[in-house]
Amino acid sequence: MAAHKKLRSDIALIEPDRIVLHGLDLCRDLLGKINLGDMAFLQLTGRRPTAQESAVFNAIAVTLVEHGMTPSAIAARMTYAGSPEAMQAAIAAGLLGMGSTMVGAMENAARMLQEAMPDPKAAGNIDALARKLVKDHDGGSIPGIGHHFHKPVDPRAPRLFEIAAENGFGGPYVSLMQSISRHAAAGSPEPQPVNAPGAIAAVASELGVPWPIMRGIGVMARAIGLIAHIREEIDDPMTREIQARVGEEATAHLRRR
Amino acid sequence: MAAHKKLRSDIALIEPDRIVLHGLDLCRDLLGKINLGDMAFLQLTGRRPTAQESAVFNAIAVTLVEHGMTPSAIAARMTYAGSPEAMQAAIAAGLLGMGSTMVGAMENAARMLQEAMPDPKAAGNIDALARKLVKDHDGGSIPGIGHHFHKPVDPRAPRLFEIAAENGFGGPYVSLMQSISRHAAAGSPEPQPVNAPGAIAAVASELGVPWPIMRGIGVMARAIGLIAHIREEIDDPMTREIQARVGEEATAHLRRR
Amino acid sequence: MAAHKKLRSDIALIEPDRIVLHGLDLCRDLLGKINLGDMAFLQLTGRRPTAQESAVFNAIAVTLVEHGMTPSAIAARMTYAGSPEAMQAAIAAGLLGMGSTMVGAMENAARMLQEAMPDPKAAGNIDALARKLVKDHDGGSIPGIGHHFHKPVDPRAPRLFEIAAENGFGGPYVSLMQSISRHAAAGSPEPQPVNAPGAIAAVASELGVPWPIMRGIGVMARAIGLIAHIREEIDDPMTREIQARVGEEATAHLRRR
Amino acid sequence: MAAHKKLRSDIALIEPDRIVLHGLDLCRDLLGKINLGDMAFLQLTGRRPTAQESAVFNAIAVTLVEHGMTPSAIAARMTYAGSPEAMQAAIAAGLLGMGSTMVGAMENAARMLQEAMPDPKAAGNIDALARKLVKDHDGGSIPGIGHHFHKPVDPRAPRLFEIAAENGFGGPYVSLMQSISRHAAAGSPEPQPVNAPGAIAAVASELGVPWPIMRGIGVMARAIGLIAHIREEIDDPMTREIQARVGEEATAHLRRR
Repeated sequence: MAAHKKLRSDIALIEPDRIVLHGLDLCRDLLGKINLGDMAFLQLTGRRPTAQESAVFNAIAVTLVEHGMTPSAIAARMTYAGSPEAMQAAIAAGLLGMGSTMVGAMENAARMLQEAMPDPKAAGNIDALARKLVKDHDGGSIPGIGHHFHKPVDPRAPRLFEIAAENGFGGPYVSLMQSISRHAAAGSPEPQPVNAPGAIAAVASELGVPWPIMRGIGVMARAIGLIAHIREEIDDPMTREIQARVGEEATAHLRRR
Repeated sequence: MAAHKKLRSDIALIEPDRIVLHGLDLCRDLLGKINLGDMAFLQLTGRRPTAQESAVFNAIAVTLVEHGMTPSAIAARMTYAGSPEAMQAAIAAGLLGMGSTMVGAMENAARMLQEAMPDPKAAGNIDALARKLVKDHDGGSIPGIGHHFHKPVDPRAPRLFEIAAENGFGGPYVSLMQSISRHAAAGSPEPQPVNAPGAIAAVASELGVPWPIMRGIGVMARAIGLIAHIREEIDDPMTREIQARVGEEATAHLRRR
Repeated sequence: MAAHKKLRSDIALIEPDRIVLHGLDLCRDLLGKINLGDMAFLQLTGRRPTAQESAVFNAIAVTLVEHGMTPSAIAARMTYAGSPEAMQAAIAAGLLGMGSTMVGAMENAARMLQEAMPDPKAAGNIDALARKLVKDHDGGSIPGIGHHFHKPVDPRAPRLFEIAAENGFGGPYVSLMQSISRHAAAGSPEPQPVNAPGAIAAVASELGVPWPIMRGIGVMARAIGLIAHIREEIDDPMTREIQARVGEEATAHLRRR
Repeated sequence: MAAHKKLRSDIALIEPDRIVLHGLDLCRDLLGKINLGDMAFLQLTGRRPTAQESAVFNAIAVTLVEHGMTPSAIAARMTYAGSPEAMQAAIAAGLLGMGSTMVGAMENAARMLQEAMPDPKAAGNIDALARKLVKDHDGGSIPGIGHHFHKPVDPRAPRLFEIAAENGFGGPYVSLMQSISRHAAAGSPEPQPVNAPGAIAAVASELGVPWPIMRGIGVMARAIGLIAHIREEIDDPMTREIQARVGEEATAHLRRR
């Protein structure tokens, strides 16, 4: 194996008597001193969060853990029923649906905000920027704005903005997202509130999370969410019942021939 | 779709103006008040942890997040290189290797402890129980004991036991695991310390986590771990280099023909 | 990267002007001369099948492609709805449920046959062997025997045995499986016919497929099967409807509070 | 579960005494009469291929089965090492990398051809169309043209065109792809031959495969390919060696501190 390029990873050093993660000793510096959300922040950024960053980041992550009987939860349950000895496969199957339909709004909103305002310290005229972004979408749907189900207001958005503000993260990205909502409403017969993906996109942008890895927060949070569904599927399975009903109805027209 | 059995889930109620998880209002009761580890505890058990349970559970989960360039991390990186637009697929690929080889020791240790002591309140003679369990393994490897790399002692085990004890969870399962270590050492030329999987199994058993879902804690923690590897693979990829070296070396004997 | 062990793969040599698979030139020896089932046989065994092996192996694989609205098909559809830009993720999700529940019967039957008769050329007294195997199961279910749905006879089993016999593969493993069925029926109020997994296990054993990789035939065949479900889900999706119905029914008891 | 929309699937009818796939009886019409590639064609299109379609479709699928030590093969091997009891997980992990990087060229070429020529019966001036398409790409890379490794000519492309022509499928999409190659070469210092993804895209378009499901052929073929790698990994594993070398080299700079 001739080397063409040096392999290099800065994440972890594993030695017989110590484990060093991002320059921190797991046993001495992290265990008992850091919660799982902070650990995720460390993995994403390479450094421990401040108390304020911790509060905001944990709130974002907690928001993304669970949303009921989603296709992702159903896929995980179906997979568990086939492979009960491989729980990791059921969780993986549930995560595989975390694509454009499920996390696209969050990702697109973050991209819109970060591309419109590459340097939040030089924010410029946020109101004018928002007006331009709304105009660019030309009456079409704007990522992070509106919700087909959580009406009139997605309750998660104001709560996340509140937590962000309390911790000093109600900065320019949050202002921009909120300003987009106001300008969108101005040209619309219906209110155009910021939804949860939009609020998460804005607040995570304040935390400095680049949009291309935003999806990762959703994926890791869902891994936690899916465990509850698998636990429930173990105790009181619904797979066979769903399968029987779907199969019966979907092929009834073939049977009648 | 004729119903044969009623479908039922107690995890989440999603309504237009509120999201209720395990009977708790997401926005009012959870956001800003609970960290991601506590949220995972809530998903696993259906209730919020006490401060002590939170400390212990978060420590367990943090321990399982990251262990360097494992096959799981390499699989995630390889997959990201092929499907950069689908980060969830890369994380899922990395999770799929969390089977018997990777989490078997933890799962088997928890099973051994919980089957040997179904009711920790009626623990009985722990020392005698440990002696019997060691004898049952007949000189073969005992789950949760010893480590091929972390020598002489896996540093995570004593630290986890310390955190458990500080929070009132150094109970019968921890005693049993430690007693197994002592009895195993008695019949062996080498020390037989409890390893990290063994310590996690004992401490999680103290928390009341049933062994069949123990693997889930490892899987969700690894989802967090893999994000660091994907972030690094985005910034400084190693996939093509590994592929080139492996391909070159593995097929050199065919080329020479 | 210090080498401890040489990496070696005999599958493929990829050169600028030719691709050699198992010693055969892809363009000269395989394309236009081999069908996909034969290619799978080549991948599994390292050699091209005879015409008889091809007939039998293709029949096995075709049998495993499609079985309607299984949990695997539903999981793939649910995943596609979330990640339509990543069809590979939907197919992977559908495959992840191919575990013990779905392919266990086939795998267990093959293991039973191959462990009972390690060398089919020295088959010995097949009838006595079958009697012993039935007795060992002590009235419990025997892998490869009976079916909860395909009654009185799983129609795939006699057809596969017929194809095997026509091609000279109705040998000792087929005899053993059929003899097991007869002896099982002798001690039972109900008929105990060989089912499809049992027939596949016997016939694949005749072809020399070791039981630990038997599952792979099912997995690859299902990848083909899932494409039809994804195609149909693109044209006429059922994901949202299933999600809505399941969510509504499963959480109705929470709503009424 | 109130029904809002009827569920319907036309793929399979599963009854106790028969299995009907796309209106064909599995045991009577398919087993022993159809090979695995033809079965895949049936799943993709809902009908059996003609002898000519069978020859061409099997050639395409066989081409996509195996390409050596790709990241996909390495991911599958790494996953198998962690979860040897769940071979489906290893195959799924290998498939998850079949995204834009791996199958993008094929998919993009097919899209380009099909969007440029929605009705191949009204092909019009193919040469002019090719010139326009090349011009649209403005010197940038054109999907289906050129190869960084298979030089000067990807040997699979002419062979696939040959098989297509022999079977009456050397029609307008093949002409368009070849014409694109000629026009691309005209403005380039280097030859611009059609590569394998380009040839597959053209020939599959001749067969009537819509570009949005083209990726599915690659995914199912790779499932077959991965079985060889898992079989080899069982017999002569390389996971631990790769892990050890990668870990050692990638973290050496941390160790020296």
